[in-house]
Amino acid sequence: MRFISQTSSDGVTEQLFTLGELPGVLWTPDDRAGTRPLILMGHGGGQHKKAPGVVARALRLVTEGGFAVVAVDAPNHGDRPKTEEFARVVAGLRAGVTAGEDIAPHLAAMHTLLAEQAVPEWQAVVTAVQELDFVGAGPAGYCGMSMGCGLGVPFVAAEPRIRAAVLGLLGVHGLAETAARITVPVRFLLQWDDDRVPRAQGLALFDALASADKTLHANPGKHEEVPEFETGSAVRFLTRHLGQATVS
Amino acid sequence: MRFISQTSSDGVTEQLFTLGELPGVLWTPDDRAGTRPLILMGHGGGQHKKAPGVVARALRLVTEGGFAVVAVDAPNHGDRPKTEEFARVVAGLRAGVTAGEDIAPHLAAMHTLLAEQAVPEWQAVVTAVQELDFVGAGPAGYCGMSMGCGLGVPFVAAEPRIRAAVLGLLGVHGLAETAARITVPVRFLLQWDDDRVPRAQGLALFDALASADKTLHANPGKHEEVPEFETGSAVRFLTRHLGQATVS
Repeated sequence: MRFISQTSSDGVTEQLFTLGELPGVLWTPDDRAGTRPLILMGHGGGQHKKAPGVVARALRLVTEGGFAVVAVDAPNHGDRPKTEEFARVVAGLRAGVTAGEDIAPHLAAMHTLLAEQAVPEWQAVVTAVQELDFVGAGPAGYCGMSMGCGLGVPFVAAEPRIRAAVLGLLGVHGLAETAARITVPVRFLLQWDDDRVPRAQGLALFDALASADKTLHANPGKHEEVPEFETGSAVRFLTRHLGQATVS
Repeated sequence: MRFISQTSSDGVTEQLFTLGELPGVLWTPDDRAGTRPLILMGHGGGQHKKAPGVVARALRLVTEGGFAVVAVDAPNHGDRPKTEEFARVVAGLRAGVTAGEDIAPHLAAMHTLLAEQAVPEWQAVVTAVQELDFVGAGPAGYCGMSMGCGLGVPFVAAEPRIRAAVLGLLGVHGLAETAARITVPVRFLLQWDDDRVPRAQGLALFDALASADKTLHANPGKHEEVPEFETGSAVRFLTRHLGQATVS
């Protein structure tokens, strides 16, 4: 893990880094004595590790929850090269949108392709970040919506260090069996008038999660219109399950 | 409004009262200088104003939110006399349960009968309690599940002093048109494995609410198994919309 830059603003330190070829960003409190739970954030499709929504949620997780938050560019996103195979899948998705088809199979194909690479990358990120003395090998959480949910479901199912997850804004297509392997507490966000995810498909993904402790939060509005109060609620959910920073 | 008794425990003052023939209970902080938002709580079917679940939620609303909380026995419940008409409706409900019928129409008939009397009673309760100098005529809220939702929907729809409501654990049968007149912020609780309310019926009641600001919280478990963390979440929701006590 190689740190490239370090800046500080409003009590939050932001460090850009690379892990091998993987570009990432780590946010921690300026005062980072002791250790703290780590949240890995997955960004949405076409976005990147510093998309405005990712940054806004990360800052609140740090300032209100005292967490360390890490995000990396997903495969074929942000500063990373795009493969021909990814370009073909994206072209298929765009053609499906234009043709007015159900895009769920296209999204599932894209997420399956990306998850194969993203899951081991994210596991390596958790390992590397938890070796930092101001983070430590305590419980970790995951937070990702939409494509961040499509990659997050296989990640959370595969990774026992993740003890709680905030997911949502995605339907069940292609994910039912993987979701049925998730048993950690989950907060699941659904937009009641989602213009990309049919309501029944989103409810079915929530239903498929095996977690005994899972809560669906549904709000009116479209895919991009999750109310801001859900961020504060997610911080409290993650704090409840992962605990707070520990001064050593 | 005639106060009958006053006790105090763990910082909360409990006053039993009657308003005409109507028996009620009012909870406020022991230190009740100034004015504060009022929450009217509706109890479930077969319960009463001091049912354990009502008391537990009321105490948290007072201690964590600083609210005044009032509950009265619903018509034909608690210390109130039962009418023959109510006995007939209950007998119909029980026969329906025994016969394995869809009980939604029976519940709707019971709630319609009770709401006709409860709505004007609750309006009078809000008026009387808000005349107390330690409450005051500020914003009020409503909190009621199951039968408390069946009576709460027509009450909230009819009463402009109610500015936010916590509802849920009930289906849409007989309530769609009334719910479509509710425009204040609503928190709606749904149990994913409700053994009394079919999931689709509960989702349809949430859908029918006209409120632009409404959030569905769905959790695994049966009708009686709402997780305790939803109480804290409801306190924050009501505080966000009604504000806090004001020291005069």
